Amino acid sequence: MLSQLEWHDVDTPLIICFWLTSIVVAKIIFHQSKIGHFIPESSVLITFGLFAGFMLEYFFGWDISLHPDLFFLYLLPPIALEAGYCLPFRMFFKNIGTILLYAVVGTCLNILFISGILYLFSPYYQNSIPYIDLLLFSTLISAVDPVAVLSVFEEIHVNQILYINVFGESLLNDAVVIVLYHSLAHMATIEKIESEHVQEAVGSFLTVATGGVIIGLLFVFFTAFATKFSVKIEVVQPLICLLLPYCCYLACESVHMSGIIGIVTCGLMMKPYLDGNLSEKTKTTTKVFMKTMSNTCEAIVFLFLGLSIFSKSHIWDFIFASVTVSACVLVRFVVVIPLTFLANRRRVKKIALVDQAIIAYGGLRGAICYGLVQTLDQDVILSKDMMITTTVVVIVFTVFIQGSTIAPLVKLLRVKTEEEKPQLISTHVLNGFSDDVMAGIEAVIGKRGGNYYRRRLSAFNHDILEPNLMIRPTSRGARLVEKVCEMNAEESRKMLLETFEV
Amino acid sequence: MLSQLEWHDVDTPLIICFWLTSIVVAKIIFHQSKIGHFIPESSVLITFGLFAGFMLEYFFGWDISLHPDLFFLYLLPPIALEAGYCLPFRMFFKNIGTILLYAVVGTCLNILFISGILYLFSPYYQNSIPYIDLLLFSTLISAVDPVAVLSVFEEIHVNQILYINVFGESLLNDAVVIVLYHSLAHMATIEKIESEHVQEAVGSFLTVATGGVIIGLLFVFFTAFATKFSVKIEVVQPLICLLLPYCCYLACESVHMSGIIGIVTCGLMMKPYLDGNLSEKTKTTTKVFMKTMSNTCEAIVFLFLGLSIFSKSHIWDFIFASVTVSACVLVRFVVVIPLTFLANRRRVKKIALVDQAIIAYGGLRGAICYGLVQTLDQDVILSKDMMITTTVVVIVFTVFIQGSTIAPLVKLLRVKTEEEKPQLISTHVLNGFSDDVMAGIEAVIGKRGGNYYRRRLSAFNHDILEPNLMIRPTSRGARLVEKVCEMNAEESRKMLLETFEV
Repeated sequence: MLSQLEWHDVDTPLIICFWLTSIVVAKIIFHQSKIGHFIPESSVLITFGLFAGFMLEYFFGWDISLHPDLFFLYLLPPIALEAGYCLPFRMFFKNIGTILLYAVVGTCLNILFISGILYLFSPYYQNSIPYIDLLLFSTLISAVDPVAVLSVFEEIHVNQILYINVFGESLLNDAVVIVLYHSLAHMATIEKIESEHVQEAVGSFLTVATGGVIIGLLFVFFTAFATKFSVKIEVVQPLICLLLPYCCYLACESVHMSGIIGIVTCGLMMKPYLDGNLSEKTKTTTKVFMKTMSNTCEAIVFLFLGLSIFSKSHIWDFIFASVTVSACVLVRFVVVIPLTFLANRRRVKKIALVDQAIIAYGGLRGAICYGLVQTLDQDVILSKDMMITTTVVVIVFTVFIQGSTIAPLVKLLRVKTEEEKPQLISTHVLNGFSDDVMAGIEAVIGKRGGNYYRRRLSAFNHDILEPNLMIRPTSRGARLVEKVCEMNAEESRKMLLETFEV
Repeated sequence: MLSQLEWHDVDTPLIICFWLTSIVVAKIIFHQSKIGHFIPESSVLITFGLFAGFMLEYFFGWDISLHPDLFFLYLLPPIALEAGYCLPFRMFFKNIGTILLYAVVGTCLNILFISGILYLFSPYYQNSIPYIDLLLFSTLISAVDPVAVLSVFEEIHVNQILYINVFGESLLNDAVVIVLYHSLAHMATIEKIESEHVQEAVGSFLTVATGGVIIGLLFVFFTAFATKFSVKIEVVQPLICLLLPYCCYLACESVHMSGIIGIVTCGLMMKPYLDGNLSEKTKTTTKVFMKTMSNTCEAIVFLFLGLSIFSKSHIWDFIFASVTVSACVLVRFVVVIPLTFLANRRRVKKIALVDQAIIAYGGLRGAICYGLVQTLDQDVILSKDMMITTTVVVIVFTVFIQGSTIAPLVKLLRVKTEEEKPQLISTHVLNGFSDDVMAGIEAVIGKRGGNYYRRRLSAFNHDILEPNLMIRPTSRGARLVEKVCEMNAEESRKMLLETFEV
């Protein structure tokens, strides 16, 4: 009576808060208990969702599933942004060849092989499924989930090369899958597919991907400019760093380019400029808050996944499900090993055989698969419900079984893990030095290799971009001095705190 | 064609992003240009909204106004939370007597006097307005806006006592106004008001306020507990610190207690416990992000205010508007001066006459007034549209005229401003010491004054609450040592950086 806000109005935010609080509680319980050492966090969220879904279904008859708009407009962008922003910049570009090989060629091969296997077994399914539908399903089921992968790999501290390859692959692979998925979803509506349709699909794939990169780079400029001129108003800087990449995603989507490629590009490339424009405080805030958001969105997707397991609309096809699970696991091994062989021919630091096994085994499925399968058009893909069921089975299998056995496997195979190195100023000096020497050698022998173009790009960045986009563009020397000071100060701070035994 | 996300779906987030981006751009332009020295930021946002509103009205015929649900459920809570969280804890409780005097007694007197003046002039208005409607209007127009006040006072660096009193008053005054407003809005629906209705209103005011405080304290425990047990999962901590206070607000509203009192209490009281439970990184993130959110929400309200100025539904009553503006300005002086006289009788550090003038003159109106006037029920308050127009006039007057003249006034009156003191460890020691001495003297003379209860409360907090709610409860001695270390480390860091001239 007293308040004008009646229950009805408070409804929406209360429900959202309820689920978010449940997620927080589930996470706290998970990390407080000892089970965290055996199974990944995502499996706990799925289990929690499972119970909640069962209760809601049993007591209220509610049937909950993730709405595609919710996933693509609100949950996916923060996950993609954080992934791009937190990618180790230098390592990523050093390994970009191998990563692209895995992510583009590897994913395409994965899709082809999985769809082939599914097609082979098609006489045994409950309903006949056209090949184009199987291809579409193979595409979405090939999306390796960066967050599921990351949460597992961060705990076991594998060596940096393995880490960047697995993470980089899972990240770009999403973009490839989503773009291919949309092309195929369009093709699935066509009754008779001719070669020109395939050409069109390939063409549109390239257009959509390139368009995403270009719009992403455009928004890098906007973000850098906006942060450069807002140095005096610290309080809006975190907003800029979250808002503009999201605008980039929406801009891409509204001109039908790839939003996910756009936002990943924007997040990845804006980081060096933001590092120069943001204060220590806003830098921390932006990074930590991105992590929090991405983590929360991911948790919401896993929760929905669990909630939907008890949905009434599930259609079980045991053979289809078993074939899919086996195909997903096997095909990754079949694809990764020859591709690594190719990659190793050009690599200086080779990828070892045990590392290859981990790359193949680490292909956990997650949020993206589930989000994509929900967006299938029921009128075009008649077996959508069965595909949803199978996707849930694949995700649950990879997250629970593979996710919890990968750490023991890493130990068993004696995969080289990353030891913590002391931060040395000499590594920073040597990094720059080796780049220069390599470029020098290339110049002497008259070859224009990767190092030549890297140097040209870096000169362009340093002479033209940085002075315009950053408040304090610094020479390599000045950056080194700054680094020394920071490390010195941090060291003396630690020593002081130690002497006082705080 | 390629993407399943068609324009229609991207609509909502695109519009939101568009307005947010406009706000960012407006702020950047404002701070880059020199006008920032003369007028407050809020006036720029109103002006920007004015132009945008004019264009939208002229070209599209759109009529934009702030929906009360948007204001009360999404924009107000972040503003209130940040205000509570960033209130200087120690200073606030040292001045709580004076602040409560201004906020509770002062606001009530303000409402009575303004409604009296409005009633006196009622024969001259275009329509006759019943006294209860005038009282309701006087209530909402008495809400001093903490953010408008803060943004002005932070720039001019007034002395700490003046600052805490103005800020504390504007903060608690909102709570008082909102609670009174809801009681009166209920009374306005009753045809014949009898004394029991007034008693009921007073009773409900007390219930609603106390209920808010109790629920707020309850959520302080929840937040402290949740952060204590999530030390290992840093990434959810910022979420907890934003989510649980918001839950507190919703919980209060859904049991018809005061959400704003609840969330301010929660924000204010949870801070000491969070300081013990959060890492340096999450502490910074929580604080900066709260500021960003609150700042953004405030900007949105000012934008809406500007947008609505060109609305077609405005009804001008020149006499009513002029009487309201004059009453708002004058009554604050009439109320502040005798109340300060009362307060000064018990204060050790007196509030000077020039300070009183600034407190009275600094009563800027803003978001809360506008939000409240929009929630009026058109069926009960027949002159709602005219009141909206008048409220906009009052806000524009106080923000533009008072907001831009207060800085020159502070200079003219030679108000004592705050000089930046070097951080000394002795001030920390002396603060604790003086509290102990005061309590000791009170014990000797056998009197149980404020210091006695403060000591008891602090002992209860230290012995019972802190060990349960914090991961590292520390004695005063240990805290001092930690403080010394931090200050030492920071100093040596600065010296190092200076020697390298970075």
